[in-house]
Amino acid sequence: MESKFQELEARLVVIHDLNAANAVLQWDQQTLMPSGGAAARGRQLATVGRLAHELQTDPALGRLLDDLRPFEEQQPYESREASLIRVARRDYEEAVQVPPAFMAEFLRHGAEAYEVWTRARPANDFAMVQPYLETTLDMSRRLAEFFPNRDHLADPLIGFRDYGMTAAMVRNLFTELREQLVPIVHAITSQQPADDSCLHKHFPLDKQWDFGVDVVKRFGYDFERGRQDKSPHPFTTSFSIGDVRITTRMKENRLEEALFSTMHEAGHAMYEQGIAPEFEGTPLAGGTSAAVHESQSRLWENLVGRSRAFWEYWYPALQNTFKEQLHDVTLATFYRAINKVQPSLIRTDADEVTYNLHVMMRFDFEMDLLDGKLQVRDLPEAWRERLHHDLGVEPADDRNGVLQDVHWFDGYVGGAFQGYTLGNILSAQFFDAATQAHPGITADMQRGAFDTLHGWLRDNVYRPGRIFTAAELVERVTGGPLRVGPYIRYLREKYGMLYTL
Amino acid sequence: MESKFQELEARLVVIHDLNAANAVLQWDQQTLMPSGGAAARGRQLATVGRLAHELQTDPALGRLLDDLRPFEEQQPYESREASLIRVARRDYEEAVQVPPAFMAEFLRHGAEAYEVWTRARPANDFAMVQPYLETTLDMSRRLAEFFPNRDHLADPLIGFRDYGMTAAMVRNLFTELREQLVPIVHAITSQQPADDSCLHKHFPLDKQWDFGVDVVKRFGYDFERGRQDKSPHPFTTSFSIGDVRITTRMKENRLEEALFSTMHEAGHAMYEQGIAPEFEGTPLAGGTSAAVHESQSRLWENLVGRSRAFWEYWYPALQNTFKEQLHDVTLATFYRAINKVQPSLIRTDADEVTYNLHVMMRFDFEMDLLDGKLQVRDLPEAWRERLHHDLGVEPADDRNGVLQDVHWFDGYVGGAFQGYTLGNILSAQFFDAATQAHPGITADMQRGAFDTLHGWLRDNVYRPGRIFTAAELVERVTGGPLRVGPYIRYLREKYGMLYTL
Repeated sequence: MESKFQELEARLVVIHDLNAANAVLQWDQQTLMPSGGAAARGRQLATVGRLAHELQTDPALGRLLDDLRPFEEQQPYESREASLIRVARRDYEEAVQVPPAFMAEFLRHGAEAYEVWTRARPANDFAMVQPYLETTLDMSRRLAEFFPNRDHLADPLIGFRDYGMTAAMVRNLFTELREQLVPIVHAITSQQPADDSCLHKHFPLDKQWDFGVDVVKRFGYDFERGRQDKSPHPFTTSFSIGDVRITTRMKENRLEEALFSTMHEAGHAMYEQGIAPEFEGTPLAGGTSAAVHESQSRLWENLVGRSRAFWEYWYPALQNTFKEQLHDVTLATFYRAINKVQPSLIRTDADEVTYNLHVMMRFDFEMDLLDGKLQVRDLPEAWRERLHHDLGVEPADDRNGVLQDVHWFDGYVGGAFQGYTLGNILSAQFFDAATQAHPGITADMQRGAFDTLHGWLRDNVYRPGRIFTAAELVERVTGGPLRVGPYIRYLREKYGMLYTL
Repeated sequence: MESKFQELEARLVVIHDLNAANAVLQWDQQTLMPSGGAAARGRQLATVGRLAHELQTDPALGRLLDDLRPFEEQQPYESREASLIRVARRDYEEAVQVPPAFMAEFLRHGAEAYEVWTRARPANDFAMVQPYLETTLDMSRRLAEFFPNRDHLADPLIGFRDYGMTAAMVRNLFTELREQLVPIVHAITSQQPADDSCLHKHFPLDKQWDFGVDVVKRFGYDFERGRQDKSPHPFTTSFSIGDVRITTRMKENRLEEALFSTMHEAGHAMYEQGIAPEFEGTPLAGGTSAAVHESQSRLWENLVGRSRAFWEYWYPALQNTFKEQLHDVTLATFYRAINKVQPSLIRTDADEVTYNLHVMMRFDFEMDLLDGKLQVRDLPEAWRERLHHDLGVEPADDRNGVLQDVHWFDGYVGGAFQGYTLGNILSAQFFDAATQAHPGITADMQRGAFDTLHGWLRDNVYRPGRIFTAAELVERVTGGPLRVGPYIRYLREKYGMLYTL
């Protein structure tokens, strides 16, 4: 049995290494690759991805996992051994469900649709991508149908990124959140918006870069095991537990852009850096779900990085870095500016409060599209109507409407967005648990110290990697299931100080 | 037959893509990777390399190549089809000669020996690596013995990098070169060495970088299909014909270091960028031998970059870049400085004239080690004696003697060095052929134009990739075999203007 387990590890590390190689190829593609490398790089990614998929679906792997059942049952549930077998089996069973020919066609279509979208978006031409999106929707349905064990067609699609979650669960949570969130949004938006002009002066890029790096170093992001580069869209990628990289983008007239994106990505990256080193090279070395991953990025970006306590320490340093721009801007003004709430068109630029309405709208559209209640051709109009209804704003064109997000255009329809709002909800729930365990965390932030918070997250959230499902992790760490309460309480308290609620 | 050929192409592109993925992993490792990524990266490289080797030695590939013999014979020798089959068969037959278990052990030992060398060199401790080098020598012999078709044990080892070359051929060429070179070296070194102090002032790194980039852009190195980064040891790497990258290293007090290393690597890179685009993803997309590759780097570095004609155009620009440092340095002084001949200890720092004596010494040692005429333990002393005899200098320690080159410590003994001098010889022979075809090339250089030279090299040397062996290529391009004459003539003419010969 020992030797069978070693054989399993040997098989899994090859899959892991091929996926890591592809992550390096992608990171390079998005940060440094010269344009001339694009065609061959696409081919290389496809080749390596196909080999990884072949090994991931090798029937011999399935037999090995079957043979290891008795061994697995002898080991404690939380042990490295039992967890490795359990998670590897889950990955295997998911992968073999989809016929390779369909998967190849699906990926080929995704690459093509993405390429069309990159041209359609700047051209503001929804008609150009509409047939591709229709095919994507059709293929998303067929993809879901390979998984017979479901209540709703979206369940397997949601499960790819948020294992254990279903359409019904997300719907219930979102309904509850919506009921409590909409009155807050209405209360705030009926008031005078904050003045954030202090963020839109001229801020030299090199100083922005250095300040962001200082902050995330202090958070605990380890530059000996990572690095930051520039890319058109910020992202985090992991090649191993010892090499987890982030990217950012900077604008001279938007101080908040790079700053909060760096904190956000560092939150993702600290999660991956904090996984137990003994999981390196195994499928346990990863975040347990999209929602839990997003909870870590949003916790550091918002609950820490947009908090008053944080800036009580850091604002003098920021003023010192940008003397000319900020010397006459008070901490109170700056704090209001970085927490300005205002309905807007673009999800990724939205404030903490209205952001979730963007996500819930997309989730509802995904469900309606899958259910056949909404047609792709009607999406631009539905988008305008719903945004007007929810936020009182309306995009003048599709570029700033239905074409803004990459998700549906490089993947599938269904399950692409819920993780963002689930992550917001969880960020408050985890932060609550951390401050209950260590009430001094806020005082620590006021003096620029994050060790206790980072240590608590590392021990409780990061270290287990994929040992626990998201639901198991939340239960263990917070003593109950995912709950909307802490997040709403956080928003009410924070925005109650800034606005009349 | 058509479908068999397509199957061959499909198999070869997978091998090519895995090797390209490993090239990206290595490039990243040597340029940007944080230290924490080292352990996992070594494992990832080994995994991807092993998979590539398995596919390269798959018996099904061998059968396919057998089946394709009739098809190959119907196609013209120079056609893409016949060449692809021919070169793929050569690669296959070489790869299957070595048992996988030996190859794995050989690579494992190489990685270990390299790691020990990286510590032994700064510690000046030859005894530390001696047992590893003894094992390397033993394994080099065993590796060679897998190839029964040889006159000398070194022949297959030489052939790995310089296909078609044998120990006897190299020995004959080197004997001839040596006879003509030694009198030139003696004549020069009996005279007053040139004053190169103008190169050792303080030169800001960013300006050095920009100047080097300007020069190689003008050569024709295409930054849309490549980029330059920094690394401890400069190198060129190709991920595809559309993505060929170079690296450099810079020192503030050594103007010549980055400048000529950038030209050198750009020479390698233009070769890879210039291969016919229809060979992308196939084994034809590469340099045909180490010697021909080195001929291109040395041609651009020395025959162009260290020529008087080149600097007649570029020196005013360099003076303008480094006004303070060079305003009172004449072109004649600068030209003498960058062509200073002085016996020295380190091969990679040696001037054009004495460089080849370093290489020939190493080649002779390799042959003597393989033949059992020289023992590894006697190598440091033999090194000192031979250097003293050939160049009249003697290293004070092994760090600057036998431990200076990585080659024997990360690979095999035999065949590691001859390509450098063969490349020097060829660089003059190719340049001769180019100027015979286009006598205006030197006048072009005097006005900063390289189109004709670059175009001739692209059409004659770069485009064929691996279609022709080095011997075939030299014959086609220069109308005869590799010859020492043009190189000696080049040295006599050039250094006859600088010294009394």
